[in-house]
Amino acid sequence: MSNIKNIALAPSGRQKIEWVTKNMPILAQIEGEFAKTRPLDGIRIALSIHLEAKTARLAYALRAAGAEVSVTGCNVLSTQDDVAAALAADGFSVNGFHGASDEEYMQHLINTLEIKPHIIIDDGGDLLDIVSGARPDLGEFLWGGCEETTTGIARIRARERAGELKFPMIAVNDADCKHLFDNRYGTGQSTWDGINRTTNLIVAGKTVVVAGYGWCGKGIAMRAKGFGANVVVTEIDAVKALEAHMDGFAVAPMAVAAAVGDVFVTATGCENVIRREHFKIMKNGAVLCNAGHFDVEVSKADLESLSVDITSARNNITGYKMPDGRELYLLAEGRLVNLAAGDGHPAEIMDMSFAIQALSVVFLAQNHEGMKPKLYNVPREIDDYVARLKLAATGLSIDTLTAEQERYLSGE
Amino acid sequence: MSNIKNIALAPSGRQKIEWVTKNMPILAQIEGEFAKTRPLDGIRIALSIHLEAKTARLAYALRAAGAEVSVTGCNVLSTQDDVAAALAADGFSVNGFHGASDEEYMQHLINTLEIKPHIIIDDGGDLLDIVSGARPDLGEFLWGGCEETTTGIARIRARERAGELKFPMIAVNDADCKHLFDNRYGTGQSTWDGINRTTNLIVAGKTVVVAGYGWCGKGIAMRAKGFGANVVVTEIDAVKALEAHMDGFAVAPMAVAAAVGDVFVTATGCENVIRREHFKIMKNGAVLCNAGHFDVEVSKADLESLSVDITSARNNITGYKMPDGRELYLLAEGRLVNLAAGDGHPAEIMDMSFAIQALSVVFLAQNHEGMKPKLYNVPREIDDYVARLKLAATGLSIDTLTAEQERYLSGE
Amino acid sequence: MSNIKNIALAPSGRQKIEWVTKNMPILAQIEGEFAKTRPLDGIRIALSIHLEAKTARLAYALRAAGAEVSVTGCNVLSTQDDVAAALAADGFSVNGFHGASDEEYMQHLINTLEIKPHIIIDDGGDLLDIVSGARPDLGEFLWGGCEETTTGIARIRARERAGELKFPMIAVNDADCKHLFDNRYGTGQSTWDGINRTTNLIVAGKTVVVAGYGWCGKGIAMRAKGFGANVVVTEIDAVKALEAHMDGFAVAPMAVAAAVGDVFVTATGCENVIRREHFKIMKNGAVLCNAGHFDVEVSKADLESLSVDITSARNNITGYKMPDGRELYLLAEGRLVNLAAGDGHPAEIMDMSFAIQALSVVFLAQNHEGMKPKLYNVPREIDDYVARLKLAATGLSIDTLTAEQERYLSGE
Amino acid sequence: MSNIKNIALAPSGRQKIEWVTKNMPILAQIEGEFAKTRPLDGIRIALSIHLEAKTARLAYALRAAGAEVSVTGCNVLSTQDDVAAALAADGFSVNGFHGASDEEYMQHLINTLEIKPHIIIDDGGDLLDIVSGARPDLGEFLWGGCEETTTGIARIRARERAGELKFPMIAVNDADCKHLFDNRYGTGQSTWDGINRTTNLIVAGKTVVVAGYGWCGKGIAMRAKGFGANVVVTEIDAVKALEAHMDGFAVAPMAVAAAVGDVFVTATGCENVIRREHFKIMKNGAVLCNAGHFDVEVSKADLESLSVDITSARNNITGYKMPDGRELYLLAEGRLVNLAAGDGHPAEIMDMSFAIQALSVVFLAQNHEGMKPKLYNVPREIDDYVARLKLAATGLSIDTLTAEQERYLSGE
Repeated sequence: MSNIKNIALAPSGRQKIEWVTKNMPILAQIEGEFAKTRPLDGIRIALSIHLEAKTARLAYALRAAGAEVSVTGCNVLSTQDDVAAALAADGFSVNGFHGASDEEYMQHLINTLEIKPHIIIDDGGDLLDIVSGARPDLGEFLWGGCEETTTGIARIRARERAGELKFPMIAVNDADCKHLFDNRYGTGQSTWDGINRTTNLIVAGKTVVVAGYGWCGKGIAMRAKGFGANVVVTEIDAVKALEAHMDGFAVAPMAVAAAVGDVFVTATGCENVIRREHFKIMKNGAVLCNAGHFDVEVSKADLESLSVDITSARNNITGYKMPDGRELYLLAEGRLVNLAAGDGHPAEIMDMSFAIQALSVVFLAQNHEGMKPKLYNVPREIDDYVARLKLAATGLSIDTLTAEQERYLSGE
Repeated sequence: MSNIKNIALAPSGRQKIEWVTKNMPILAQIEGEFAKTRPLDGIRIALSIHLEAKTARLAYALRAAGAEVSVTGCNVLSTQDDVAAALAADGFSVNGFHGASDEEYMQHLINTLEIKPHIIIDDGGDLLDIVSGARPDLGEFLWGGCEETTTGIARIRARERAGELKFPMIAVNDADCKHLFDNRYGTGQSTWDGINRTTNLIVAGKTVVVAGYGWCGKGIAMRAKGFGANVVVTEIDAVKALEAHMDGFAVAPMAVAAAVGDVFVTATGCENVIRREHFKIMKNGAVLCNAGHFDVEVSKADLESLSVDITSARNNITGYKMPDGRELYLLAEGRLVNLAAGDGHPAEIMDMSFAIQALSVVFLAQNHEGMKPKLYNVPREIDDYVARLKLAATGLSIDTLTAEQERYLSGE
Repeated sequence: MSNIKNIALAPSGRQKIEWVTKNMPILAQIEGEFAKTRPLDGIRIALSIHLEAKTARLAYALRAAGAEVSVTGCNVLSTQDDVAAALAADGFSVNGFHGASDEEYMQHLINTLEIKPHIIIDDGGDLLDIVSGARPDLGEFLWGGCEETTTGIARIRARERAGELKFPMIAVNDADCKHLFDNRYGTGQSTWDGINRTTNLIVAGKTVVVAGYGWCGKGIAMRAKGFGANVVVTEIDAVKALEAHMDGFAVAPMAVAAAVGDVFVTATGCENVIRREHFKIMKNGAVLCNAGHFDVEVSKADLESLSVDITSARNNITGYKMPDGRELYLLAEGRLVNLAAGDGHPAEIMDMSFAIQALSVVFLAQNHEGMKPKLYNVPREIDDYVARLKLAATGLSIDTLTAEQERYLSGE
Repeated sequence: MSNIKNIALAPSGRQKIEWVTKNMPILAQIEGEFAKTRPLDGIRIALSIHLEAKTARLAYALRAAGAEVSVTGCNVLSTQDDVAAALAADGFSVNGFHGASDEEYMQHLINTLEIKPHIIIDDGGDLLDIVSGARPDLGEFLWGGCEETTTGIARIRARERAGELKFPMIAVNDADCKHLFDNRYGTGQSTWDGINRTTNLIVAGKTVVVAGYGWCGKGIAMRAKGFGANVVVTEIDAVKALEAHMDGFAVAPMAVAAAVGDVFVTATGCENVIRREHFKIMKNGAVLCNAGHFDVEVSKADLESLSVDITSARNNITGYKMPDGRELYLLAEGRLVNLAAGDGHPAEIMDMSFAIQALSVVFLAQNHEGMKPKLYNVPREIDDYVARLKLAATGLSIDTLTAEQERYLSGE
């Protein structure tokens, strides 16, 4: 039972899924093994991740393992209706459409949970929020779940500190094969893909302000440099600020950076990182966007209250006219620019991330009985296994220690 | 009298033109001066450049100077119908629509020349070809023209060598403010914009083969490195090959590079740079595209004759299935990937290029009587003037020599 | 009571120490505080770190805190006799001279321990080795120690696993303000300083093989790329190999890389990383060097046994002639090329590392009673404190969370 | 008849020459051909180039061609006495020693010209200056000469404009195989080699001001970026300033850059680029050096007149104490930092430059009768020949046009 835009869009969605399938060899290999061993036979899974072609691949892999999978998105602007249609046409329960209202979005999440899952897969923590709060009944069979993002993990930790985490959750984001690649190379490239296709402006020579120098911020700054930009990093952490400094970037508080930036990208996981006081001193024509999970990093409320006029400047670009005549441009309504104004991470990146997801789900299915209601790391073996599959898929081989070297390293 | 797709698309085109207007300050300043001095009063101009928003700005600037401007595109896949509509709605004579057939394209060029221009503005040389060959009557009032591209200039030189050039032509491409910026930073960024939005594949870690290490190839290779690719350059010129080598790129003949590349980009100005013998040894899944002017660099004829199946793999991606099962992917039918699968060069880049164009047209109008039927460089003064306008628009200032330093440099 | 080369070299050493003092502002500030609070009053410290000007600064800071400091080096090729002389002339007990034999080096370590220290500062683990093995009597008053390097920490872990660690040791290397900066930016720059000044060869266009992609290897590879090299990384860890791949480097086993490299740099912490089988297939003229702690990474024994002639090719370059006529060049006898053929890490880098050392020593002095015989991390507060001192010394300021943002992040 | 420091240093010089010989394969191949064809039989050549090992190789190659070669340096701080000794011991007439006074330097030039050369090889133009001015008698048999540097060519052009050039001179510097490689990759690397080995300071995170964005400045800025610096470029040319801007560097007048720079490098060919007004606003501890031909770019006169104290801060570093307590550090007395504080360009770079020199000398010998007293470019054939030799020596092969492609390019 699905609630989507238009089932007739399925062929377009199917073409997109076929394309990414060709570029997700690790998941394909895992799916092949799952089809034989059926490690998720009879298990119900509720899945809330950006609803586009790569996520569809994950749904197929889980189904091949024997699971019943109920699918929704995690951001109303990143949902691609044709992909949703393809999944629905193929028998998945799918809830979600592009541009849903807040109420509709909430309903889609609840519909998805009505499967009463054993396992939830979250991207930002909305499913966990519902089963932990408004609708504990939907979590009555829940063994636990997996979380995809830095933001979601921060929310789980807060819940854990408050003694309110009731299920084991696995920090998929923190696996090496996830955050070292997805957050850095994935976000780095796809954020600029979103910005460039939306603005058609040159990056070389521009002053780009990157808020946050975590793995996502590092990737965004690295690619900005690769385009010939002059990069300014803002941070709240002293060590990360020094890293940015030594990587050749300027470092400044936002109150200083705001006045010199041409393009601003937020990736902090925090709210109101760019706000009233900053908008007031920005240059005419400044471009603003967000690569963090929630659309709270650039304060839209402040932008709106400061503006004398709000216009559509180009597809996915909103122009905010300030009383002094300056115009500021916000991309994709401040939502994740790589997904809301693009196709999200490249397929090969999600291949690694979703391989970790799929194997973590199986780990949870097999070990949930002995697990406590806390946040778990992905087992090192899963990380290493995915890395080795990726090396093999890429045709790379590496060294192994000789027996003599192993002895040397063990200090014998 | 225009021949376009649909005049109702004008509002969308107008929005696009407004967006680029905000990001083309040099041309705006020149247009402002033109409106006062009217240096092209009563002059007829036929303009054939990729018909999208930035080109529309050039048309407006020329009209502000007093000219009557007849507009067409120079590539059937780069024409944007909404921009054409906006120009037509605003009283320009416009001929061209997206996806025109070869015959229709030729007819659009001829229609455009029916204004019997004093000056032509060419991008690739098609207008010059017609007035020099099939329809000399359309050039009966012609004083000369300007050429935008490396490819077009090569064709003019061939014509000059053969004694068949009948008008003075100005090599706009060779101005510093054009080729150093447009061909390098413009092509570099927009080519990858086209590739990334079309494929949604990761560039980091990929082996990217760049054919040609001229200014365009340098820009494409530089940005590929900026994305974390492993770059292989192919060349026919020994000095350029050494530059690529010293820039840290691998250098190899195409017969070697073909077997290791994941993504191929051509920017040579030559034909059949990637052909039958290369397709035969490529890896499964190799992505092919072109950043050179004509769609002849990747041999489509060879691809087609080798294939057992040809499919649409994704929007703007054609899959060619080889008899051995490998599939090769050609983007945008081998046409300029940045224009046929994107929005072309960033606005600020075209601001410089079209400032050179506009000033070169005025130079030609004012000096054509003393000029010979040969290829002229853009006067150094125009180059320097545009560079200084750009510095000012960017808010940059630079040093000037002291009197003492001028004496020192003059050797006195 | 010192055992050094020549006390008359003190003025030259003093000049070197003055130069680094100007560039080590953090340690200077800490020293100023130490001079007031005297947190190490009456405490005896044995210090074994590369004996050059920056290390001398650490000795002065510890003395200012009230400690009695006995100093030696940790590598016979990195000891600078003039710096040793300056310290001795200034009343420190100093043992060590450049080019000491293995027996002399061992004697210098023992002499240094004869102070019967409360705390040892190790760089590679040689002091700990002596007090844990041959001469436990010299450690009879020992509270514990600090270890500077990855290699030394690996040795401590092996000892810990074997149940043979008798004192608390602090893993100074693992502090963020140490390994993120010292191992990456410090080793990266100084390794190439050593190679370039020793060889006077171009790096651009060369194929550089970096063995190991830990923090040191990352720094070396990053700078090689900065010089325009084509970099090949060898690894034994799948995740690190993938990171190298995504950073745009080639990845291969040493058996493959050996045949294509022009310059080889090892940074693995392991032995015989480049050995007989690799030397046999290297190109004529290949340059070999090591940036790891011990001179075991490039097998000198194998080089010697393979050679028909061994010559001095240039200062600090040994030429090994192979039977087939190829000549391989080993820099600085395979010892740390940045120290044995250069001046080691830049002063500002050691300023951070030694600030961590000095504060860790004080932490140990104040907390040793409650500490167990195991490996401890540097407290997060020390790391953050040093990072903030460094930001201040560099004139950089960063953001702080608003109260509202703190609430948001805590999930309330 | 030589005038050198000490003939006993010859063995050390010979070792240096042997080392570079192994790394200058192009010149070796040309020398081999010269030895057979003897194209300079009986011709006298006066050679004034930085007197170190690579230059010695050029002298040998010319002698192998049959020439009688008289050698001197072109900068008293770059002359290496052991190399001079090795050449003298091998029968060359050599004049010059390290640290000669201005009078001694002038005498060395004159002594070198006493051979009454047919051809002069200049680096900066001092030999030409003497035969054109004070001592025309020494040029009585002169056919012409070759000039190695941008600076020397500017002096020749000034002489040409003034109608005072009496011989044909070849602009070796302007050959592609010279300036594209020597000035960019050679100066880029060797300048930083000189700075790093002299200062032992970190470059990452520093603000580096590069004065001049010609080929040398481009190389210096590129490598500074490769080290993780934040780069500011100063320029007097608008187009070059825009290139620097688009390459991601900050652009500012020196009056602004002076206040923010940590390290300053001049490469302009002009005088007093950094002077009194700039010294007054520099940060304490600023490091100054020059990569241009003459020691006039950083005004030593201004530094001295502003200082209250001048000290030797480290080998090759002079400290200038300002009245307000700030101290500024000048490297290598403001002379070419790569030569006066290092070993100059890498051997492989000079291999290309000196191959151009040697072939240009032969061209002059064979064609001087038909040449006019003006500045000539190196023939394109020589450039292409050297590039192809270099590709072959590096083991690289490139593409050649098919017959079909040649037809296409010729426009037939």
